Amino acid sequence: MQLAETGLAPIQLDWLEPPRVVLVGASRRPGSVGRSVYDNLSCPGRPFELHTVNPHPLGEPGEGHFAGVSDIPQGPGLAVVAIPAAHVAAALRELGAKGIRLAVVISAGLGRQSEAGRAMLEAARQAGIRLIGPNCLGLILPRHALNASFARAMPKAGDLVLLSQSGAIATAMLEWAAPRGIGFSAVVSVGDMAQTDIGELVALFARDPGTRAILLYIEGLADGSGFLEAARAASGSKPVIALKAGRSREAGRAALSHTGALAGSWDVYRAAFRKAGVVAVDTLDDMLGAASLLHLHPEGSGDRLAILTNGGGAGILAVDALARTGGHLAQLSPGTIEALDRACPAGWSRGNPIDIIGDADAVRYESAIRAVLEDEGVDALLVMNCPTGLIEPGEAARASAAATARARRTGREIPVLACWLGDANLAASAPVLQDAGLPVFATPSQAVAGFAALVETRRAKGRRARRDPAPALPDETADAREVLAGIRADGRAILSEIEAKRLLQSFGIPVVPTHFIASLDEAEAACRAINAPYALKIVSPDITHKSDFGGVVLGLSDAAAVERAGKAMRAHLARAFPEARIEGFALQPMIARKSAHELFIGIARDPAFGPVVMFGAGGTAIEVVADKAAGLPPIGPEDARDMIGATRIARLLSGYRHVPAADLGAIAGVIEGVSRLAVALPEISELDINPLLADAGGAIALDARVVLG
Amino acid sequence: MQLAETGLAPIQLDWLEPPRVVLVGASRRPGSVGRSVYDNLSCPGRPFELHTVNPHPLGEPGEGHFAGVSDIPQGPGLAVVAIPAAHVAAALRELGAKGIRLAVVISAGLGRQSEAGRAMLEAARQAGIRLIGPNCLGLILPRHALNASFARAMPKAGDLVLLSQSGAIATAMLEWAAPRGIGFSAVVSVGDMAQTDIGELVALFARDPGTRAILLYIEGLADGSGFLEAARAASGSKPVIALKAGRSREAGRAALSHTGALAGSWDVYRAAFRKAGVVAVDTLDDMLGAASLLHLHPEGSGDRLAILTNGGGAGILAVDALARTGGHLAQLSPGTIEALDRACPAGWSRGNPIDIIGDADAVRYESAIRAVLEDEGVDALLVMNCPTGLIEPGEAARASAAATARARRTGREIPVLACWLGDANLAASAPVLQDAGLPVFATPSQAVAGFAALVETRRAKGRRARRDPAPALPDETADAREVLAGIRADGRAILSEIEAKRLLQSFGIPVVPTHFIASLDEAEAACRAINAPYALKIVSPDITHKSDFGGVVLGLSDAAAVERAGKAMRAHLARAFPEARIEGFALQPMIARKSAHELFIGIARDPAFGPVVMFGAGGTAIEVVADKAAGLPPIGPEDARDMIGATRIARLLSGYRHVPAADLGAIAGVIEGVSRLAVALPEISELDINPLLADAGGAIALDARVVLG
Repeated sequence: MQLAETGLAPIQLDWLEPPRVVLVGASRRPGSVGRSVYDNLSCPGRPFELHTVNPHPLGEPGEGHFAGVSDIPQGPGLAVVAIPAAHVAAALRELGAKGIRLAVVISAGLGRQSEAGRAMLEAARQAGIRLIGPNCLGLILPRHALNASFARAMPKAGDLVLLSQSGAIATAMLEWAAPRGIGFSAVVSVGDMAQTDIGELVALFARDPGTRAILLYIEGLADGSGFLEAARAASGSKPVIALKAGRSREAGRAALSHTGALAGSWDVYRAAFRKAGVVAVDTLDDMLGAASLLHLHPEGSGDRLAILTNGGGAGILAVDALARTGGHLAQLSPGTIEALDRACPAGWSRGNPIDIIGDADAVRYESAIRAVLEDEGVDALLVMNCPTGLIEPGEAARASAAATARARRTGREIPVLACWLGDANLAASAPVLQDAGLPVFATPSQAVAGFAALVETRRAKGRRARRDPAPALPDETADAREVLAGIRADGRAILSEIEAKRLLQSFGIPVVPTHFIASLDEAEAACRAINAPYALKIVSPDITHKSDFGGVVLGLSDAAAVERAGKAMRAHLARAFPEARIEGFALQPMIARKSAHELFIGIARDPAFGPVVMFGAGGTAIEVVADKAAGLPPIGPEDARDMIGATRIARLLSGYRHVPAADLGAIAGVIEGVSRLAVALPEISELDINPLLADAGGAIALDARVVLG
Repeated sequence: MQLAETGLAPIQLDWLEPPRVVLVGASRRPGSVGRSVYDNLSCPGRPFELHTVNPHPLGEPGEGHFAGVSDIPQGPGLAVVAIPAAHVAAALRELGAKGIRLAVVISAGLGRQSEAGRAMLEAARQAGIRLIGPNCLGLILPRHALNASFARAMPKAGDLVLLSQSGAIATAMLEWAAPRGIGFSAVVSVGDMAQTDIGELVALFARDPGTRAILLYIEGLADGSGFLEAARAASGSKPVIALKAGRSREAGRAALSHTGALAGSWDVYRAAFRKAGVVAVDTLDDMLGAASLLHLHPEGSGDRLAILTNGGGAGILAVDALARTGGHLAQLSPGTIEALDRACPAGWSRGNPIDIIGDADAVRYESAIRAVLEDEGVDALLVMNCPTGLIEPGEAARASAAATARARRTGREIPVLACWLGDANLAASAPVLQDAGLPVFATPSQAVAGFAALVETRRAKGRRARRDPAPALPDETADAREVLAGIRADGRAILSEIEAKRLLQSFGIPVVPTHFIASLDEAEAACRAINAPYALKIVSPDITHKSDFGGVVLGLSDAAAVERAGKAMRAHLARAFPEARIEGFALQPMIARKSAHELFIGIARDPAFGPVVMFGAGGTAIEVVADKAAGLPPIGPEDARDMIGATRIARLLSGYRHVPAADLGAIAGVIEGVSRLAVALPEISELDINPLLADAGGAIALDARVVLG
């Protein structure tokens, strides 16, 4: 159910800092959810009134306990509901009557298809109550001392918000965050998202001045477009980081066309994240790394990393990790090399990674770091320490903290990451490093993954700042609508090849000239209009993969050959597909482009995100090659270039040996045209251009398939 | 220097458990290497005598201290040398005279090119001393209470050996290992490997009954073949795990031919590891994960993983991680599902991953684990726990430990991995889990990487068990030698196309028939011998990429066309390459194979490993496509199939749509032939077959280039 349909008001920030909290289902039974939430809410010095509800009195009678919701006083506030599913709807009705506008439903067993679930939604609508959950861990707002959840402890107050589709992942993140000094403005476990989805909360916390960055754990979104809009608005002012789980699961989603089959769910999410300026991370490790960096450096970082280490091996492993991400080794300036020559003994590496040698003491760490932080060619610094028996574990940490603090005072605010190898070394050093604003990582690869998230944050900001391209021109839309009107009038869903090409042409996409021949008698006249040699294809609404079934003959030299081929084709198909309706033939000139690449561009419709444009390597092996990138319209020239660049075939398109580069602008132009078409004509459910031939001279669609939804 | 050249004896295991240790360069100065090693060696209750040497008396005069090496008593033992580089050679001479046979040289500044380094090697040779190092952390043998290193602490005794080219990485591994309960039979920091390399130590510990698994940190090997032989022998009885650092660095190694350029260092190491039955890991995190599993399960594991979790999100993330590795989700048997139905409430996932729901208590954990461990379709189990406020952190751990112990008693020995999310949750649970033999991981992706190492261990064992293929037949070698003798007689290094093809043919590799025409007058006669249409190629020792420079014309229909094309080619090249020597032309029939794939097979010579066979996608775009796999000869049919399977083009070769599968046996046959050739003819430094055309009918080499070293 979309929020607009319910007539309910959007959740407001001040609802999350309520004057009172009503816990329906409070309990004193150890191990129960009601007990855990009750303990969490009973925070000493809380700035809200706590009302508990349970027909059975809690152990110690006290003020604020009531046998039923109908007994609580009238007034605003937040409700937390942790009672059996069957009673939730009734509780919501009563809560609404008492003035409650927001309820966090922790109870499970309230799925969309269940009777209790439907009753809950209806009761909320009638009572004017906004719901978070059901089936969630709860809501935590540390700055209001509000822990309306069954998490184990109250996280530190801070400026990250965590919105999670899994309560378990939320509690794990909180427990990891605590020892790393990472605090939260809010943590919301969204559960089944029956009424409030992640998109609405992203929009809410985008407006929260106490939130610097937004972390998301996502399993699946019903309202993709709403999320996209909210995330795009949010990422303009603060980084949005997402971990999408279940990438490997939904790949089998059935779909008829190539595009549909290719548009695996993760492709679409990745495209949505790019569009929305969201930074995608791959694992919980990376999510945690991003969190520990982004609350300090929400602006992200450039991609030139300096690596400073007392152990050469650790430096090499960091370089290997960097090569796996999109970062680069910074080139040290001659001045920095000189300063390092003074700070280090003769055997130092004299380059990046900066190996200051195993016997490095605190003085060497401090002067080396200071030298590197003054280098304008360095965007971020990773300081590493391998344990040795030579210096006390904390010494290098204190020196690194001091050098970083000094640089900060002179205005050098670049991110400094720390990687202290070995558990004991890390434990002894983390507090002083964290206090000085150096997030600490356990291994080189984890540290470099954190850096990669910083780089991606900066890049996402750049992509987001691109202007949206112009929508379809009235002319192109009008022309296309005329084609579609004809199809609809016939009651058909699949366009003929000639109709499909006319549609593409109206959006400025070059197509090979194609003449329809209803009867082979017309072949001679048609052949006069175009240059030999010819290609002849069957036109049948019943045969999709024409080339697989003898429905395409290439390289015909003249009209007589065309007629012979057409007769043979007809005879063959009459045996192979006696039921197929043969409407005629499509005649085309052969396109002779010696070094042209076969590409693929198409449209699929995603249930959550709507139209998706796919680009990749084309030809008959398209599924097995599976070299593709997705984009969400509207797609502008830079987005289109990014899509091209995300494929393996991009390397071929850029030219090699004596094959000149293909006209990337022309290919991007086709992607943009297909994007305008996808937006302007939502009735098109599938579109495949395969192949699109591209070389230095341009791009041209040889074959196209279009289906109306 | 190879050991054989020195006349020195191989290191013996009992040398590592010496009756005495002589520390040359002992010191009491805090922060010095001599002090740190001295402290480490001064282990109370040590089973060896400790002699310290320093011209200055150590603080407290005591027995066993000597002003110079010449003062120590005669007798066997191990020496540790931590003195300035210039004095090392003299110390070694004196140590040899005293009866020392093995010295660990910690001192740096003794590089191969340095005077001190050369003096050290010569002194060792004369004194009959085997050297470990120089420039290393030292040697640790916990079972002998011997810590001859400047690492921070003595590791726990155990059955893993760690051989490391980086002292820093060794200390980090030790510090990570300690809290995870991982012990070591030995730790050797090999430093510059001036005399003793990793290969010799692998062979040594392969024979050590106290070592169950061998861990390697490798930056680069000079004697690749020696390593390969030792590792292959070792992996027959115990797993060998390697982390190769510097993968991204040496890619720029200059090389003239395609093969040389393609055979990046990491490709060759990966091929060597596969050949030797070595399991490669990507990061320190993965190395540590492998270590914590392999000391318990040196036999590895099958690839069917069951995942049991109290948090759905964590389960999904584990599945995503599994999809990124070579593992599979186990299919639970109906009996297991029934048992889980009894153990869990109605909402459990009823499949794998097994979500036993957030309110799972100890009883549910225990009965669910017991059910899964009885399932014969499960090769390994990952038990996960997300922190909640509902149960005390250690409860699930104790239950998991109990259920695993019970299964072990009934003979089910499959690996059980634990992933306890959240630092506090992990800390509270790790001891009980580790004690019960459940290695503990912090995140789903780390746990799954550990499982992947187990699976790869089992697979490596299978690959290792393959029989080596037969060497080249006397006939094929004799024929080839005749070709090469001719080339050598001419003083040439590059074979003509016709010679190259004769060479390939002698090793059973199908080639397109090629006729040499010295003059175009011979064209007509040559054309009569083969079928039209023809391909004509220039034969010149000076033009390598013929097709790029107008030296190839295809599709010639008759002798007249061949003559015309030859004349035009000659005229063009006379202008474009006036200096090029034109020896004549090669005439071939056009090979018309409509759906054939263009492949590439070649030989490169690696400085460390010798001949390397490369296979991959061929054609003119070979460098940009960069789709390739390496193999070390001798390559048998299964190895060849593995190489094919490691490329992206393998998906096309397996057939798709209406394109039948290529004859993989024929392609593998060519790889095997090239492998025999590489072994039989070490004088061949480069060989490129590109393209090798392959389809359902077989494989045929169209063009080949061979260079003698």
